[in-house]
Amino acid sequence: MLESHVAGRWRTPTDEGAPLLDAATGEEVARISTAPVPAAEAVRHAREVGGPALRSMTFHERAMLVKELALALREHTDELYELSYATGSTARDTAIDVDGGIVTMLGISSTARKNLPNDVVATDGPVERVSRGGTFLAQHVWTPLRGVAVQVNAYNFPVWGALEKLAPALVAGVPSIVKPAEQTAYVTERMVRLAVGTGILPDGALQLLVGHHEGLLDALDGQDLLSFTGSADTAAVLRAHPAVVQRGVRYTAEADSLNAAVLGPDAVAGSPELDLFVREVAREMTAKAGQKCTAVRRAFVPSSLMAEVTEALAARLSTATVGDPRDPATRVGALVDLEQRDAVRAAVRAIAAGGRVVTGAGDTVVDGYERGAWMAPVLLAVEDARFGPVHDVEPFGPVASLMAYDSAEEVVDLLALGRGSLVASVVSHDPAFVRTVVLGAAPFHGRLHVLDRDDAAESTGHGSPLPHLVHGGPGRAGGGEELGGVRGITHHMQRTAVQGSPDMLTAVTGQWVPGSRRRTDGPHPFRLSMSELRIGDGFTSDWHEVTPEDISGFAAMSGDTFYAHTDPEAAAANPIFGGIVAHGYWVLSRAAGLFVDPAPGPVLANTGLEGLRFTTPVRAGDRIRVALTCKALNPREHTDHGEVRFDATVTNDRDEVCATYTLLTMVTKEPRP
Amino acid sequence: MLESHVAGRWRTPTDEGAPLLDAATGEEVARISTAPVPAAEAVRHAREVGGPALRSMTFHERAMLVKELALALREHTDELYELSYATGSTARDTAIDVDGGIVTMLGISSTARKNLPNDVVATDGPVERVSRGGTFLAQHVWTPLRGVAVQVNAYNFPVWGALEKLAPALVAGVPSIVKPAEQTAYVTERMVRLAVGTGILPDGALQLLVGHHEGLLDALDGQDLLSFTGSADTAAVLRAHPAVVQRGVRYTAEADSLNAAVLGPDAVAGSPELDLFVREVAREMTAKAGQKCTAVRRAFVPSSLMAEVTEALAARLSTATVGDPRDPATRVGALVDLEQRDAVRAAVRAIAAGGRVVTGAGDTVVDGYERGAWMAPVLLAVEDARFGPVHDVEPFGPVASLMAYDSAEEVVDLLALGRGSLVASVVSHDPAFVRTVVLGAAPFHGRLHVLDRDDAAESTGHGSPLPHLVHGGPGRAGGGEELGGVRGITHHMQRTAVQGSPDMLTAVTGQWVPGSRRRTDGPHPFRLSMSELRIGDGFTSDWHEVTPEDISGFAAMSGDTFYAHTDPEAAAANPIFGGIVAHGYWVLSRAAGLFVDPAPGPVLANTGLEGLRFTTPVRAGDRIRVALTCKALNPREHTDHGEVRFDATVTNDRDEVCATYTLLTMVTKEPRP
Repeated sequence: MLESHVAGRWRTPTDEGAPLLDAATGEEVARISTAPVPAAEAVRHAREVGGPALRSMTFHERAMLVKELALALREHTDELYELSYATGSTARDTAIDVDGGIVTMLGISSTARKNLPNDVVATDGPVERVSRGGTFLAQHVWTPLRGVAVQVNAYNFPVWGALEKLAPALVAGVPSIVKPAEQTAYVTERMVRLAVGTGILPDGALQLLVGHHEGLLDALDGQDLLSFTGSADTAAVLRAHPAVVQRGVRYTAEADSLNAAVLGPDAVAGSPELDLFVREVAREMTAKAGQKCTAVRRAFVPSSLMAEVTEALAARLSTATVGDPRDPATRVGALVDLEQRDAVRAAVRAIAAGGRVVTGAGDTVVDGYERGAWMAPVLLAVEDARFGPVHDVEPFGPVASLMAYDSAEEVVDLLALGRGSLVASVVSHDPAFVRTVVLGAAPFHGRLHVLDRDDAAESTGHGSPLPHLVHGGPGRAGGGEELGGVRGITHHMQRTAVQGSPDMLTAVTGQWVPGSRRRTDGPHPFRLSMSELRIGDGFTSDWHEVTPEDISGFAAMSGDTFYAHTDPEAAAANPIFGGIVAHGYWVLSRAAGLFVDPAPGPVLANTGLEGLRFTTPVRAGDRIRVALTCKALNPREHTDHGEVRFDATVTNDRDEVCATYTLLTMVTKEPRP
Repeated sequence: MLESHVAGRWRTPTDEGAPLLDAATGEEVARISTAPVPAAEAVRHAREVGGPALRSMTFHERAMLVKELALALREHTDELYELSYATGSTARDTAIDVDGGIVTMLGISSTARKNLPNDVVATDGPVERVSRGGTFLAQHVWTPLRGVAVQVNAYNFPVWGALEKLAPALVAGVPSIVKPAEQTAYVTERMVRLAVGTGILPDGALQLLVGHHEGLLDALDGQDLLSFTGSADTAAVLRAHPAVVQRGVRYTAEADSLNAAVLGPDAVAGSPELDLFVREVAREMTAKAGQKCTAVRRAFVPSSLMAEVTEALAARLSTATVGDPRDPATRVGALVDLEQRDAVRAAVRAIAAGGRVVTGAGDTVVDGYERGAWMAPVLLAVEDARFGPVHDVEPFGPVASLMAYDSAEEVVDLLALGRGSLVASVVSHDPAFVRTVVLGAAPFHGRLHVLDRDDAAESTGHGSPLPHLVHGGPGRAGGGEELGGVRGITHHMQRTAVQGSPDMLTAVTGQWVPGSRRRTDGPHPFRLSMSELRIGDGFTSDWHEVTPEDISGFAAMSGDTFYAHTDPEAAAANPIFGGIVAHGYWVLSRAAGLFVDPAPGPVLANTGLEGLRFTTPVRAGDRIRVALTCKALNPREHTDHGEVRFDATVTNDRDEVCATYTLLTMVTKEPRP
């Protein structure tokens, strides 16, 4: 009997429950409660315990939890693989689910530590200078929602589906409640049991509800999130729920869609692209027995290549053995259950009404597994590429339809008939064709995968969402966005424009805002370790008077003899300069000479610059100086140093800003002995 | 009789229509049709004519249209001011609407030209290196939706409300249909008449529907947008419409909310902040007779300051003259109509049930204007700060409620009782208090305005949405985001992750992606004007062998004697370098010397650098060279030059990348004579 995990305890349902059957053998694997889940208690616990615990940490601290949890789960993948066979998945299919889920967590953890500050608040975009005098500025910030992220998941990826949503929520600081689909809930339950067992996550950060979701949505309000993966119909039902419509629950859906693959007209017989197309479509049809929300359902081929492609694809599919998922020779495992198989068969009939079955007709029987939900790959060919059902009815199994097209514009129109999809592949080596199809199809897709001889060896394939790329699609695909690096994390946060004086923005964001207070009476900032340095600690250099020799000497030293620095007559004709000016690189170099504190200390290296702008030319006779100010402190977790960002501003003696930039340095956390 | 503008023609309704009355005099101003609008025709025209016309332009070209339109409208503000009096607005109120709308267009136009490429596709975030060998990369792109943006607007800002939505849609490349609120539709109609009359916009880019919106939503699908401004109840009704729930129409709402102002405990009697608070709250209550979605409804004051603030605010409000909006002495004009006034009175009664009326009780009579919708400012004091209606019932008129609090944590909780607001002000000069309240309240707000002695002179005020800042709020405030610079533009676009080889990503994005083809057999790129330069045009320099004198000479020249460049023993102890290394700035300077083509030509100036990273230290004995590649071309509209971005990569003779950066240059469009 599957249990829920609520408020730190495993809860055994008191009802009889319903049996869940092995997809291949038909034997009972587990029982699942048919009673409503203890939703209100879980939501309350997440809000009162899990949320505050997570929000007391920084983005980096939470990202480290995600990484540690991923590494801990990696120790237990055997258990998950073993259970996963019962869902009909081959080991290869399970790798997508289990290893894919772990890799996604690691990717999200790493992108978070790279792109978010080690703090409790993150900035979005630059400081907006909304006043002339600079006393009133604005900065957009991200802060975590004060609610709970509820996942209502699909049956096909019981591990990945939960982890790819859990990781961004955790990093954002929002606790999660996982509600798995019934059919494969026993795999998710085991994963959550393993995760909770590690003790890595704070109490209330991850809860599991197994059973009927009645009452769950009623407990949610405007600071909560609801994410759904599954059919477009259920997505619409949830979207119309009062929690979403009236109470402002943030809703995102990732729904089944009619994903496509397009073969370019350049991919003639014998080209690598024709072969890549056939392999990719066949793989999409057979992996996970086609039960992937990203699987190719519509395959568009130039009319002239239709016969060739049909034959090659049929031949390739004929080698895809259907059978026991535990048998390593099996390519196509079982569908999740007989009900699902019957639904796929019905979908095939609807599409076949407008075309013909090329391969895969008839029932599939696997000897010794008479109760299994078997289905051989079905390839259809649809004569009229505008036949409605092929763009509307999704057979969620090993099924795809071939259609012919005659121009890039036509195939863009055909792709759009899917009314929004998660992904499409364009298999072509012709940049002009690729550009037309990609830009034409982009408004209808969340991801577009261009496959050709150049990237095939390293391509992660049509069907794989990646942690750094958005996953989701417009329209029928649900209109949601998951993953995408920091994008999927910010989905769990509120973006707020904060307006105020420079000092107040510095206080709020923890990053020094130009115009706010600097402390220049302390030690030189290069003498301070991260533990000693404070935001606003600064150093203002002496003046340096620029000489003609500075400019000519730098030209000689660097070899940069650009006429604006060396040829008075030509420089005078330059519309920006109107005479000899110092090199921007000289200004930068001299500024370093003015601000650097040379002795060994906590500053280990200058690792780069951001946002350098030369705003006023520097000429011989000008005096310049530089003001350096500690702008941001990002200690790295589990190491002895971190990144310190300094604002550097070079001004002349007319108070004009000559150059501004952000200096990136690597600094030790503690004073160096 | 107000007309609709559909498919290039003004349409006169055939019904009798209903009268719209002057808010002050009660006289008929115009008649408005009560029949359904010709919605399907407008949507079709936008899709078939307006959309393609806009999408044939670049972001900058469209942004220039927005600017030209704004400047053209500025020539006709007199007409709009004159009409606007009939809505009850004083000239001061109308400035927010008319001049505010024009300024918003100019701001959006300028932010678009600054932050988006002069191209038909924009990139989002960096190139994602999702493969080890770099043959398979990804780039997120923005492309315009292929539908129409339908605005369903509120009555209070008939010009600003339409223009602030029109501008981002136009820049994005999406045509708009404006559906104004009935009460003030005559002002919007005149504005659209003026806009269409300029001939600046392409046919189908802007249409107007005046009348009943029946059938409008039925015409929309997954590539369309619907934005609503108005009551939370109507927002919920539209959100539940099948167009949104089932067909994936992108919906955004900006709904009434219970916006707040908080006075800090530091703002004792005699402090500038106490006075600022009183002035700000009074202004929010009286401007536009309180009919602003951002107006302060809840004012939180420390218990100890309650008596003081109540008295000062009441005194200030007593000077706010109610009367004819055409009279320059009037501070508070009329509400839009008697129905609205009655609704506000009912809301006041609901709140007064839990408190007392400090000022503004009784009916307001303005002699000679007996049919006007008058209402003097009403200040309430609510004893129990958790009294439900004060956080829930919005009096959309000159009404606010005072409440006391005792700690920063308590006021954060009280703010949250509004269940999501557009904006709150924090009036305090104490950075610790401000940080606590801002970070605590941020998840519940779209904008937070910190007011103190330092920014008061330049603050744009609590109530003003700005083009560069997001406008909208979570939960009850509708959950939408408008404006916010590029953010409001991208709302009209689809974000798509494009995966492929470097060459294919370059072809799709129009920006050179590292690893893709370079052309180095042509002229040096510095010899080419923007009209001649192509993406991928490159130059690879000769090798330079680094000498100890390069390093010591640079230290002497720049004054940068950091130990890693000058002190062998100390440098050896540095954990990153382990010995003397060249200055990063020297690498940068020498690279310029290696790539520069010094003679006068189309390159006018180096204006800056982006994303500089020093990735491998350079030492004496190394050989280095630099590869320069044209990465992005951004010609500026209406001038003879633009920005060219070059990728610069410095490598050593072990094929290690020592430094990478993007070089920003100003280049003429045509060859220089």
